[in-house]
Amino acid sequence: MERTKPLNLSMLFDFYEMTMANGYYRTGMQEHVTYFDVFFRRVPDGGGFAIAAGLEQLVEYIQNLHFDEDDIAYLRSKNLFQEDFLDYLRDFRFTGDVWAVPEGTPVFPNEPLVTVRAPASQAQLIETYALLAMNHQSLIATKANRVVRAAQGRTVLEFGSRRAQGVDGAVVGARAAYIGGVHGTACAISDQVYGVPAAGTMAHSWVQMFDTQYEAFKTYCEIYPTNAVLLVDTYNTLKSGVPDAIRAFDTVLRPLGIKKCGIRLDSGDIAYLTKEARKMLDAAGWETCTISASNSLDEELIRDLLLQGAKIDCFGVGERLITARSEPVFGGVYKLVAVESRDGTVVPKIKISENVTKITTPHFKKLYRFYGNDTGKAIADYLTVYDETVDDSRPLTIFDPDATWKKKQVYNFTAKELQTPVFQDGRLVYELPELEKIRAYCLAQVDTLWEEVKRFDNPHRYYVDLSQKLWDIKHGLLEKNS
Amino acid sequence: MERTKPLNLSMLFDFYEMTMANGYYRTGMQEHVTYFDVFFRRVPDGGGFAIAAGLEQLVEYIQNLHFDEDDIAYLRSKNLFQEDFLDYLRDFRFTGDVWAVPEGTPVFPNEPLVTVRAPASQAQLIETYALLAMNHQSLIATKANRVVRAAQGRTVLEFGSRRAQGVDGAVVGARAAYIGGVHGTACAISDQVYGVPAAGTMAHSWVQMFDTQYEAFKTYCEIYPTNAVLLVDTYNTLKSGVPDAIRAFDTVLRPLGIKKCGIRLDSGDIAYLTKEARKMLDAAGWETCTISASNSLDEELIRDLLLQGAKIDCFGVGERLITARSEPVFGGVYKLVAVESRDGTVVPKIKISENVTKITTPHFKKLYRFYGNDTGKAIADYLTVYDETVDDSRPLTIFDPDATWKKKQVYNFTAKELQTPVFQDGRLVYELPELEKIRAYCLAQVDTLWEEVKRFDNPHRYYVDLSQKLWDIKHGLLEKNS
Repeated sequence: MERTKPLNLSMLFDFYEMTMANGYYRTGMQEHVTYFDVFFRRVPDGGGFAIAAGLEQLVEYIQNLHFDEDDIAYLRSKNLFQEDFLDYLRDFRFTGDVWAVPEGTPVFPNEPLVTVRAPASQAQLIETYALLAMNHQSLIATKANRVVRAAQGRTVLEFGSRRAQGVDGAVVGARAAYIGGVHGTACAISDQVYGVPAAGTMAHSWVQMFDTQYEAFKTYCEIYPTNAVLLVDTYNTLKSGVPDAIRAFDTVLRPLGIKKCGIRLDSGDIAYLTKEARKMLDAAGWETCTISASNSLDEELIRDLLLQGAKIDCFGVGERLITARSEPVFGGVYKLVAVESRDGTVVPKIKISENVTKITTPHFKKLYRFYGNDTGKAIADYLTVYDETVDDSRPLTIFDPDATWKKKQVYNFTAKELQTPVFQDGRLVYELPELEKIRAYCLAQVDTLWEEVKRFDNPHRYYVDLSQKLWDIKHGLLEKNS
Repeated sequence: MERTKPLNLSMLFDFYEMTMANGYYRTGMQEHVTYFDVFFRRVPDGGGFAIAAGLEQLVEYIQNLHFDEDDIAYLRSKNLFQEDFLDYLRDFRFTGDVWAVPEGTPVFPNEPLVTVRAPASQAQLIETYALLAMNHQSLIATKANRVVRAAQGRTVLEFGSRRAQGVDGAVVGARAAYIGGVHGTACAISDQVYGVPAAGTMAHSWVQMFDTQYEAFKTYCEIYPTNAVLLVDTYNTLKSGVPDAIRAFDTVLRPLGIKKCGIRLDSGDIAYLTKEARKMLDAAGWETCTISASNSLDEELIRDLLLQGAKIDCFGVGERLITARSEPVFGGVYKLVAVESRDGTVVPKIKISENVTKITTPHFKKLYRFYGNDTGKAIADYLTVYDETVDDSRPLTIFDPDATWKKKQVYNFTAKELQTPVFQDGRLVYELPELEKIRAYCLAQVDTLWEEVKRFDNPHRYYVDLSQKLWDIKHGLLEKNS
């Protein structure tokens, strides 16, 4: 079956969202106000923090939320929904409130990245897409940030489109990777649509199309004298690849006075080959020639290569970044945390589970981050009930919500609310930042984390504590429901 | 930046495809006829075979290949391309030939899933999307087939949208999973667009929205008496979940004479809980009630659960299927295998590599599968040069292309060409099969494989041999180029 028109993403829901929405409609509960949190339970790859991303796509989805006649005809064909409900869907719009942490924010387990306050049916129907958008992009932004940190200031380019999990895996994935800190992508459409800088020069096939490698290199340099990055491993990197590249640079670029150029390796022993190639380039007077490497890299391999003294200026990172291969799932969930009674009282709800780690933190909440005034570093995150405020002019004693005897006094700090209003009564009240600004914000915020939290292996567990009031409510509900 | 119009997927290319295309244009090589193969080097998860999928999306992409004024304006902004080339892109269409194995075919390493014969620029520009489409869907179809085989005839539903890597990860991913054999999906839009049957009933939030679990169950049964699958683990599965479900079935369904119903578990010790739940349901006269389970399942866990005697009729498989979590990359590549000289001679090309496993099999080829006439089972695959034919009326001696002394005589067999013409001179000549037919074909073709090839761990390596002529050409090129 061919896709003859653009997808209406409003139809991207798990089917149970619609059976529940219809259920609320049938029981007159569709306007009952509910609160849902998007949060995750552990950081992929055992990391110390994640990077929140995907809000922009969630915003666009919510703004566009509607069902057209084709959609309604499809739903009718399932023989589960009555006509009055299908009529109700015709005028279906999002009328609720959304709060979210800005894209690019470092985030931690069990804190709300997005909070939705909306009539039950609306809040339910947006679950699947909200999770998909946040999970996918947070996954890739988090992975990209690891890769970029491993490269220690060297350039990292995203090269994974051909191995991405579908179109958005590539296109939106490159956007998320850019938020996480990569410097560009190979994916042209991500540049065109999102402004992620795209670049690229040649594949092995270019070299194979000419009678000799030298001719392929020379021709390329003639056509793109200011963008000459030559792939040197089609035949033999050190025997012919680097020498042919040097000869092409000497022949074409040197007379033009162009010093900027590069070579790329995509196979072989990258550590050894780049060291030898560096020597050959330097000996030929091409100290300005950069070396790129791009063979199934990830943060572990990049760290290893640098430890081995590989001479690499630019890493092209493909499948292992764009699929977050080492752990390709960001486990964000969307859980009911409160309902409003008819008089407007917010009634906290908890989800008990036989798996203790799956127990939710109930209630409509505020999320604070405490920054030390002396260091500028993030000290702890702090969840309160929505009607609490934090007075950061006075010391505050916080405690571990699981091991409550572990207390810590924080002082000389600034408390910053992390969530910002995004929708109010269905109206967008948030100005979506430019992608460049999101990326810069991300890099700056990651700088507020202590090195111990940024460690790849066994990072320090960052505090995400509950206020005494919130803790009391959670444990009251646990006692009552167990 | 908001997506104000549907993406033109023609812009989904790695940037180097365009610099090369422009390079071919500048050197007058853009019409040189090239042959490229899509193939992969190893089966994910150490499996014995993969399932080819993604051709339908590749066909749609090729049919739609074009660059509009926005695209050309974007390319102009990169300051790399001259106006004559941008003009040339205005009328750019695919005019070449494509052969491919049908979707749903079991395939093996180093055989061409897709072969493209086209002018150099065209063949180059479609590389990225061709790989993306084939890699993504072959990955998910292959994984799904493993999961379905582990379930040994029980129902498997795809539940992973919320953890998919982007929109197509979910929507097209469910299509691929269906080809691989799952029985349906939770993803409504995959049903609407591709006809993958979608179903679903309730989440924990439904149960939490009511004053009591029993009320939530009873209400659901009243609204959906013929579709009542109740989620029983919100509070305590055996203490209250299953008893409340039985009470709701007794109260609502029994008076209506409805026997079809179900319960679902999403947490806890699934093996133990399902065995206990089964006893409770049977004791209450609900032998017809099915049990579904859905907590981070994959083929390994399903196999374990069944070994432990878990009583499960239906598996909901989420993130570990839709992302192929255990190995989320299908490593298909797109390699130049031949060029045509001006007189129409096909000249084989080889890609040497310092990694021996990366050496390609050159030439424009045919791919045969030999089926035993007595068993109907697949015996071996056989690659020949394009101008060879296989006479299956006589015994044939084949040999291992790496260990050439390992010979095997095949006789009483039928040789079937696996690739079928898809495009001829840019015109679609292939009738895309209905999704149901692709799925049925896949299941039937997997049945032609010996159990030893289908084993999850250490499967028998299926023969993919080269004809003597093709082997000679490959080794001649290796000698010449090394």
